This record gives sequence, C-alpha cells and structure tokens, in this order.
Amino acid sequence: MKVAILGATGLVGRRMLALLADRPWADPDPVLLGSERSAGVRLDFRGRSIPSKAVSPEDFEGVEIALFSAGAAAARRFGPIAAAAGAWVIDNSSAFRMDPDVPLVVPEINGGLLAAAGRGSGGIIANPNCSTIQIAMAAAPLELAFGLAEVHVTTLQAVSGAGQSALDEWRRQEDGLPPCDPPLFARPMARNVLPCIGGPAADGSFEEEAKVVRELRKILGRAGDLGVTCTAVRVPVQDGHSAAVRFVLQRDADLEAATAALRGFPGLVVASDPLDFATPLEIAGGNAVHVGRLRRDPDHRRALLAWVVADNLLKGAAWNALQIADLLAGGAATGADR
Amino acid sequence: MKVAILGATGLVGRRMLALLADRPWADPDPVLLGSERSAGVRLDFRGRSIPSKAVSPEDFEGVEIALFSAGAAAARRFGPIAAAAGAWVIDNSSAFRMDPDVPLVVPEINGGLLAAAGRGSGGIIANPNCSTIQIAMAAAPLELAFGLAEVHVTTLQAVSGAGQSALDEWRRQEDGLPPCDPPLFARPMARNVLPCIGGPAADGSFEEEAKVVRELRKILGRAGDLGVTCTAVRVPVQDGHSAAVRFVLQRDADLEAATAALRGFPGLVVASDPLDFATPLEIAGGNAVHVGRLRRDPDHRRALLAWVVADNLLKGAAWNALQIADLLAGGAATGADR
Repeated sequence: MKVAILGATGLVGRRMLALLADRPWADPDPVLLGSERSAGVRLDFRGRSIPSKAVSPEDFEGVEIALFSAGAAAARRFGPIAAAAGAWVIDNSSAFRMDPDVPLVVPEINGGLLAAAGRGSGGIIANPNCSTIQIAMAAAPLELAFGLAEVHVTTLQAVSGAGQSALDEWRRQEDGLPPCDPPLFARPMARNVLPCIGGPAADGSFEEEAKVVRELRKILGRAGDLGVTCTAVRVPVQDGHSAAVRFVLQRDADLEAATAALRGFPGLVVASDPLDFATPLEIAGGNAVHVGRLRRDPDHRRALLAWVVADNLLKGAAWNALQIADLLAGGAATGADR
Repeated sequence: MKVAILGATGLVGRRMLALLADRPWADPDPVLLGSERSAGVRLDFRGRSIPSKAVSPEDFEGVEIALFSAGAAAARRFGPIAAAAGAWVIDNSSAFRMDPDVPLVVPEINGGLLAAAGRGSGGIIANPNCSTIQIAMAAAPLELAFGLAEVHVTTLQAVSGAGQSALDEWRRQEDGLPPCDPPLFARPMARNVLPCIGGPAADGSFEEEAKVVRELRKILGRAGDLGVTCTAVRVPVQDGHSAAVRFVLQRDADLEAATAALRGFPGLVVASDPLDFATPLEIAGGNAVHVGRLRRDPDHRRALLAWVVADNLLKGAAWNALQIADLLAGGAATGADR
C-alpha cells in the first residue's frame, strides 16, 4: 500500500517510518511530508535515503495510508484532503479525536471499529493521546472483567511527549544554560516536575488532563457514566510515561482475578510479583504497556491501585498508529513485544 | 536551653543546626553528635566552628532539647537514654511514631499535644515522615471544615529524602558513571522515576506508602475510619516533595469554602489562581507548604484535587522539628515564611 507520513522528521514521525519498514504491506516508496522548514531532511527507509518535502494537497493523490503526526492545525487542513483522495488518515493529533464520526482506536480494545470501515475506501481514524492509550490498555480488561466505576490518574510524563524542541530545551537546562526566549516550559524543567501539560482547559484542568478524561471515556464506550480524574505532571525523563492509577470497580476487586484479566489482555506485560514494576528508562524502546504494583485499596473492596508504564512515542503514538494501519491493510494486529 | 543534635552532619541535621542559630532560647554551645565516621567534622553555628563527636550515652547529661536525625536504630538506642536524662527528644526517624505513648506532632495541627507535656520534664516526641507532614498540612483544614472521608495520594519525592549518599549517587548517574556497588537505588535514578521508597511493607505497599497511611491517620486523630492510599515515587529532583492528592470529603466540597479554609490555616501558601501551582525547584529552601491546582472532581460532589509541594528537608523534617522545639521551649510556634 502506498504510504505518506506527514510530520516525518518529528520524534513520532521518525518512529512511524522505522516501524513502517517492517510492514510487508508497505510500498517501498513512502512519501515523507512536513513543513517548509524540514523540507530536504533525508530519512532512512529500508536502507535508502528519502528526502522529506513540504506538504501540498496533491501529495495525497494515490496514497492509501496517510500517517499524520504534525499537530492539530495541519491535520485539520490536510486530513479531509487526504481522505477525499481515498487515503486512510491515521491522525496522531487531537483534531478529530472527539468527532463522533471518527473512530478513536486502540486496536487491542476497539480495533473492531475498523472492520466496519472496510478496505481502501478512505477516511479519518484518530490515534488517542499518549497517556490515554496506556491507561486505557490497563483499564480495558478491568472494565471487561469487573466493570469500571471510576478511574483516578496521576501521570508522570516524559519530556519527549512535548517534542524535539522540548528535549533540546530540557538538555540545555540540565547543562545549566538559561531557558530559551520565549520559554518553552512554563517553569524550569531540569531537575523539577511541572503539573501543567497543555493549555488551560474549560473544566479547570490543563488540556492533557482533559484529553485523558474525555478520550478514555470514548475509547471504553463509557461517555456518560465513567468517573475520571487526572493530574498530568511533566517529569525530567526522556522517553516513557508512567501513571499511578486507582481503579474503582463495579464489583468486588479480587486481586487474582484482576491479575488474570490483565495477563490475558494482548499488549500488556504484567509484573509477576505485586511489588514489581517497570520504569520508563528501562522499557523505553519497546511496544508493550507494563502494569505493575497491582494491589487492593485496603479500605475499599472495589478499588485497585496500579503503576502503568509505556513508551509514549511507541504504544503512545507511532506503534498504536501502525497497529491501526495493519488492520486497515487487512492484516491481523501485530502483537506488542514482550 | 541546652541542645544536642544527633546526626548533625547529615542533610537534615545541618538544617536543624542552621535553624537553631536563630532561636533565642538556644544555648550558645550545642552538642553535635553522630557516628564514628562523622566524628571531627566541623559545622558552623553563629559564626563558630563546632566539631561533631561520636555519640555516647553520657553526652545527653544536662541536655534539654535533643534533636535526632540519625535513623531508627540510633533513635531506639539513644532516645530512651536522652529522655531518661531529662531531655525532650524530637526524633525524625520512624522508631517511635506509632508508639501510642509518643505524640506525633505537626505543630499547626496538633501542637496542643505538647502543652500537656509541660516544660523540662523530658520525653520523646516524634517528627512525622516528610511526605506525611505536607499532606497532613493540606488535609487538616479540610478535615476541620468538611470532614475527610478518603485521601488518595501520589507523591513525587526528591532524592535528598534518601540522604546525602543518594544525592551523590544520583549525580554520579547523571554524569554517566556506573551505579555504586551494591546499588543504592533499586533501579537507575537519573532521568527515571522509581515507585519504590523504603522496603516492602506488610500491606503489599512499600514502607514510605505505609508511613503516609498510618501517620496521616494518627496526626488527624482518625486512626480507625479514614481511607488512605498512597503511591510513593522517587523523581530526579534534588529537594522538595510534590504530591497529587484527591480528597474525598464528608460534606459537599464548595471550592470557595475549601480555598478559604486552606488560606486561613497557618503554614500554608495557597495559589491565588486555581491553575497556579508551586514546583519543588522553585520553593526549596522555604518553610511553607504550598497548595495549588485546587479543583473539584467534576464527577464527585464531595471530592477535591490538589497539588501540594514542600521542602522535604525543612517543613518535612528540620523545620517541623524546630517548631516542636519552639513549643517545648515555651514560645509560640514560629510561623512559616510566605
């Protein structure tokens, strides 16, 4: 299948291209698109060097899969153009996620939504927010086994979630250099933690927190009646988001049954010891979502605590997008590495 | 009053000595005590250099205030000796915190327990865990105004909470050097987050988490019926613990009334804008507990979310201990800086 990547030179775009190289369904000549600024940047694909070019509407002619990781404004402009040209647009921005006509897909959870889409007819599929994906992956088997009543999340999010310029700025600060002007982070990022990701949201939270709340409800099909809170914190980690989650279930939480439900869910790696856990530094580069520190809330028969870690650029972005592409290309979803 | 500091050369001990210098009630010749290893290390007090000496039981003769920050084993050995010699022992370890005969004191909350103690008769007072103190400071005014039903905490704790050797090891790792042998952290600390502080606890959590649960209940006088959960995470920050807290109240949570209750409580600095917050890097070195990001849980009329930050070595340890000493010395508690 003919593939275009919009935002190919970004942190997520580069990972999309690397993952695409392994896809047997991928045409050998992907079209690498981006801003004027990144035009001419060359990226490797299956041993060949391919230049990125500045995107224009005609670039999507003949494209069957268009992987977008170029922000919401670019997605709003080029998404409908690419879809009208017959491409499946898999968009990693927030532009279309809450559109009732656009599926918001984590393949292991609701990949079935794509079966109805059929092959080759074109349209827009939304890739969820990075933190939301990993929380949804841990939540879904508990929803199936016990029903969820509430999900309360504190995220500890890697700097790479804010893009290459944020990584550069963080490293400058770590080296004792002054912040760039205008500042990229609201407060110093080096050796600090910042509970503000995204702009202010309508509900008194920050936008990242509002995304977790509304996207988790949509993915789980629980738009109306799932209680969700989120405090999203940027931490000085390069890659890999962590989340401390308290799940309140609809039925009594049996720890063994919960562990079994999580173990049986594809794409999850569940710690074998309840005190064991993954850390972002150690699991970055892998595609799995890691669940550890699973324990009961001793004061609440229906509540569980867990520690959930995944690579925000892979399962949180590029890997999830390529899994969607796999389904659209007609194959079975590729399992996460373990 | 004659003062001894056990563990004077440690991170907390040094801050105790610096704060002591401002106390009008403090005798000009504090006795600096510690291990054999730290014997001979000289510290400044009011412009004079005083050597630390290896502790022995007779060092507490004539001492009226004994500030301990030397771990639980040293506290168990020397606490009863110092108290028997007539000193008030203010112990920063976990050794006596849950002893029903020992007051566990945050002066702004339950300093009244010390009034009954009287002056000069000697005994042991426990200084709570660093994370617990700042969470209790935010919880106490909400308990008074609304009654608390549940407190759910995720901490993001600074490396200095694990002591000087942990700081040294973290910096070694930041510089790309291999971990020390045996490793001081369970996993790499540099550019990583570790949800394991302290050893395994009986309830399936780690010891730091168990401390927050049981000490918060004791400080608030709610040993039997306050639901508390905690996930404690070490983050690559030098000084200053942060906590994302969800408070479930007994009565409806009116945000204005909650803000007013917090503002009226001594030692707290409450952000003026609900989207505003403190960060550990910015408030380290101050004595206040900072409450920000105060908002309602939109799905739960009785629940509030907050972001609570304090310097773990000051209000979390040395400052709280010196406030206790102030009360025992007969003065009013010194207000936190704002």
